[in-house]
Parts: sequence; C-alpha cells; structure tokens
Amino acid sequence: MEVKSNNITVERTKRSKIDQVDFDNLSFGSVFADHMLVCDYKNGEWGAPSVVPYQPIELEPSAKIFHYGQSIFEGMKAYKDDQGGVWLFRPEENQKRLNISAKRLAMPELPKEIFMEGLATLLQVDQEWIPQTKGSSLYIRPFMFASGNGFHASPADAYKFIIACAPSGPYFSGKVKVLIEERYSRAANGGVGFAKAGGNYAAQFYPTQLAVQKGYNQVIWTDDNTHEYIEEAGAMNIFVRINDTLITAPTNDRILDGITRKSILDIAADEGIETEVRKITVAEVINAAKDGSLKEMFGAGTAAVVSPISAFGYKEVDYNLPELDQSYAALLKKRITDIQYNRGDDKFGWRYRVL
Amino acid sequence: MEVKSNNITVERTKRSKIDQVDFDNLSFGSVFADHMLVCDYKNGEWGAPSVVPYQPIELEPSAKIFHYGQSIFEGMKAYKDDQGGVWLFRPEENQKRLNISAKRLAMPELPKEIFMEGLATLLQVDQEWIPQTKGSSLYIRPFMFASGNGFHASPADAYKFIIACAPSGPYFSGKVKVLIEERYSRAANGGVGFAKAGGNYAAQFYPTQLAVQKGYNQVIWTDDNTHEYIEEAGAMNIFVRINDTLITAPTNDRILDGITRKSILDIAADEGIETEVRKITVAEVINAAKDGSLKEMFGAGTAAVVSPISAFGYKEVDYNLPELDQSYAALLKKRITDIQYNRGDDKFGWRYRVL
Repeated sequence: MEVKSNNITVERTKRSKIDQVDFDNLSFGSVFADHMLVCDYKNGEWGAPSVVPYQPIELEPSAKIFHYGQSIFEGMKAYKDDQGGVWLFRPEENQKRLNISAKRLAMPELPKEIFMEGLATLLQVDQEWIPQTKGSSLYIRPFMFASGNGFHASPADAYKFIIACAPSGPYFSGKVKVLIEERYSRAANGGVGFAKAGGNYAAQFYPTQLAVQKGYNQVIWTDDNTHEYIEEAGAMNIFVRINDTLITAPTNDRILDGITRKSILDIAADEGIETEVRKITVAEVINAAKDGSLKEMFGAGTAAVVSPISAFGYKEVDYNLPELDQSYAALLKKRITDIQYNRGDDKFGWRYRVL
Repeated sequence: MEVKSNNITVERTKRSKIDQVDFDNLSFGSVFADHMLVCDYKNGEWGAPSVVPYQPIELEPSAKIFHYGQSIFEGMKAYKDDQGGVWLFRPEENQKRLNISAKRLAMPELPKEIFMEGLATLLQVDQEWIPQTKGSSLYIRPFMFASGNGFHASPADAYKFIIACAPSGPYFSGKVKVLIEERYSRAANGGVGFAKAGGNYAAQFYPTQLAVQKGYNQVIWTDDNTHEYIEEAGAMNIFVRINDTLITAPTNDRILDGITRKSILDIAADEGIETEVRKITVAEVINAAKDGSLKEMFGAGTAAVVSPISAFGYKEVDYNLPELDQSYAALLKKRITDIQYNRGDDKFGWRYRVL
C-alpha cells in the first residue's frame, strides 16, 4: 500500500488486464482500466479517497440509486503526446460542473482537491492505459451516486464518488445523421437538463431508438413547449453554420453548458469566424437548407469531440448537408485536438499537464 | 431449496431479522423483510425468477444504472386482515404500469406471470413481515434497473428486476403543508413524467429541500411552461374540493397515472360526489381559498394513501384550509382502506387475495 499526497492510498492490482486489450481497435467505453478512485460520503462528510483495483461495487437493494435516480457524472479524456506526456483538457471545468450537478440533485458537493488529486493519482497509476493511437484517448468517467438506503423518496444519507477509466476510440464511427425531434423532449424548464444527471440520459433512449430505427444516429432535441427551437443532442451541443456565421443555442436550464461547446466558441472567434450565441429555430435551419445558406452542422462534446453532421431529418424529409473542402468543423476539430494532444499552441491555457 | 409454481426457486434465510423489528413503531421504508425476488434479463431474455435472502447486489462500476438513470419502480402494499388473510390492491395495475415505464425508458418489459407469481411467492415466504398494526402495511417495492455495463450513452444489454419489501407505518406523520412551485419543474412535455422513472424523483429533491426549509412538507408541481396549472406532488396526485365538487388534473405525459387517484375518482362517484377531471389553474385555487369555496385539498397515492393538506403556500403567502367534520378526504380514505384491509364491501373487485 502506497500513500500519495492528500493521503490518497493506492492499492495496486495483482493481475493487470492490459495485455488483453487491443489498443489499435478500441471501441468507446467498453474496456476498463485496472484501477479506480473511490471516495465515500457518510455522516455528513467525505472520507479519504483511495485508488483500488477496478472491482464490483456492493450495494443494498434499498440503495437509493436503484430507486430515485440520484446520480451525476462527468466525461473527460486523458491524452498522451508523442513524447509520452499526459494531458487533460480544462479539468477544473469538469470539477466545477460536477458540483453544479450535485447541488441540483441534492447531493453533497465534492471538495476540489479530492477531484483533482484523485484524478492525478489515478492517472499516474494507470498511465499505461492511455492510448497513443490516433483518435484514441483514455475516457475518464467521474461519477457520484446515492449509496444510502431507504424506500422514502428523499435524498440519500450516503454517496459514493468514483473515477473509472476506459481506453476508447471515437464515439461515432462514420458520418452522423440526426433527426430533429418533434414530439419527445429531453428537459423541462426549471428541470435538470443543465446537469449531467443520469436520468437525463435514460429519458433519451427510447426516442433515440425510434430515430435509429428510421436510420438516424442521434436526436436533436427541441424545446418541450413548442418544439420550434433547437437545443442540444444529448451527447453533444449543436452548432449550425449559416453562410459564414457559426451559431449555437445559449445555455439555459435545459441545455448542458458543454466545455467543448464553449472552447469551440473561443477558438472560432480566434480564427476570425463570426459566432452567434442565440436561439435557433428549426424553421430557420430548414429555410437555410432549402436556399443553400446552411453550410454545416456539427456536434461538440468531450466524447464526440467535433462530429460533422451529414444530414438531418425533420417531418419525414431528409436534408443533406454539403461536403466542404475546408469546413469549420475540420478546422475547429484540428485546433482543439492539437491543444488536447499537445501538438499545437495553447494560447488559452486550457492544457493541464498530469505527467 | 423449494421449487414453486412457474419454477420459482426459494432459498430461505438462515437468520431471520424479524425479532429485531418493532412492529408497533414502524417508519416508512427503512427496515426490510428477510427475502426478495430477483430475476435477471440478459441475452435478450428473462431468466428464471428466484426468492433469495435479502442481500447486497454486486455490480460493475460501469453498470449503466450508475451513469444513465435507467431505472423504474412501482409502489404497492400488502394488507393483513383481522383473520390473517393477506391482500393486495389492484396489483395488475402496477404490473401494467411497470411495463409502460419500461417501454419509455427503453427497458425490457417483464412478463406478467413473473411479476404476479413472483410477488405471490415472495409474500408467502415473508408473510410474517406483514404488519397488523392499524395504519401499517407491508410496502412492496418492485424495481428494475440497468445492470449491463458500458460508458456509451445507450440502453444497457442486461437488467435486474427485484421485489423487496419493507414493513411500514404512515408516509407522512401529521398534517401536510405544501408549496405550489413557481420556478422549478418536475417533468417536460414529451418527457418521462408519466413513468415511475428514478430520475423523476432525484429531480424533485432540491426544490423540495428548499420548500422544507420554508416549512412545507411537499411541493405541488405546476406545468413547466407557465407554472399556471397544478399537476401532481411527486409522491402523490392532488385533489381539490371547491364547494362540493372534487377536481383532479387529467393525466398526461407529465403526470403519473396514479392507481389510488383513479380509485378515488371511482369511489367518489359511487358516493354521489361530483367529480371533475380537468385542468386546474393556480389562480382558481387561490381565488377559491380567498372566497371560501376551497373546502379541501388532499394527496392520493399508494404510500400517502389519502393525505389531507392543511395549508398551501404560493408567492410567499400561506393559505390555510378549513378543518371539516365530515371531509371527503376522511370518507374516501375510509372507503379505500376498508377495501384494502378487507373490512368492507369490494364492489369494484379491486381486492386481490394472496393468502
């Protein structure tokens, strides 16, 4: 047993699984690194975090996670550069957002040092798990859930915070075709759509399955009241390029304040691209598709990075997007991944060295 | 190991905890009976259900329940009559609703016979756990959650269905004071509010905490678009009596189709009470409170049974409800509990004998 800074104990696995992994053919989030960080909250306080072998969790059947959806998470990536340096991208933004989610879900906020030092310790222990294959990275999943017991619909008295990692390839394989939703909704005004709450994701699965059956990959959610405004795509925020202007919806209590989203806005402005953060109507997008001024649509998120949309469907009609030689999506993806993988200038100070 | 009908195996506990329970002083849902029913779904099908000792569940940290809120539940009660007979109340309604919830959350539907025979077998094994103290019952919690693994935001490939039980006293102790919500919301149009999805409950905890800090027990949710219409209270549907008319909101995709709610409507009609199922505005309730025509408000649900509301708050003003000698709430609560505990006539055929 080693003891790290901030009293993080480390118990290393006796049987690494790393030899069983084909790092050249990684899917997304389906193989898991050898270790995880665990920290328990009970009696009103967080205990000492520890790095332990990735292993099953034991919970009572009455644990509130099973009944009341009290769970939140974050998505991050660790990137390895050509010299073996290990980097994170704006990790303090994830730390802050985890606590924004925690507050809305009536869960305890996690001290910043447990998050940051826990993450650094875990990545040090599992550094061999960070892929160096192009387009791959170590997907990092910090999450917190209600481990306290009871069938009373009220917040739990105990929680578990875990960081687990999965070496991963791209989230989408190939082009992304989306359906603009007319009937179902992701989030309510005054609800939890801005939080990375577990329940937000389960609510999207059925409408997404219906879209997949029609040949789409993802749903673009619209506001639940009128279905006239474009919001986000669940796993990514949405950008629309009309003529040479790049537009995305403002964040609100229904839309996740995506870290990739706001980074893209800053990079675009830095590139001299005109950006607008404003409400986008479905009608405006349809009209732009019809008159040829709709040049691009893409999704942006930690898992999705920058994912160009090749076509969208709305009211049983498909609209194809042009294939551009020099797209904003390609330019912005290169800029952001060059920062992430330590291949380019980091003028915004977003890169965070771990090792 | 015994084998019951439908091949339900039964493994009895070697150490019953029943002697440790004070059946005269039961809180709600905090002590758990000796056994539980478990049934696993994998490879596209449900396996054989079994009754086993109530025990911890082991899950991988990547199990989707921790990340994506894929969980649903039901709430039921078993009642013991004076002769020791054991009864359920409209259990097939819970079975149907579980599958309505399952479909919306992209989870597999559970065959009716597993639910019904599993429940009967479990209650037979744990029949000594059904309280006979007045106002108490065995609260039954059927639930299903995503046990399959992966960090990809998509439905799991494995699920666990469990029925666990908790001998329970009343859900509310004393009078219930509610706050009509003006800012936060429980459910979106086109969302999952009609389902008993875990995430619906976590989303209510923080606004409810804010209300509790102001001295209220529960929040009455209003529509997320205008906050002008009364919807439900999260743990119960809401009834309003104006003059001699009993009114409740129609169910829709934001409001749970409560079994107690619809039973109350039938009993009220049978009692010759005029009932209306229609939208109720907050303004109408405030005006009725001011002119004295608001006679009663109460909540109705399996856990809450019929819970009279003594006062409600709205925009920083509290409105007290009169104390009536012969309230609809008292009448309807007596009628429904007389059916449930086999004390009265069951003209609707709602009672279901288990033992």
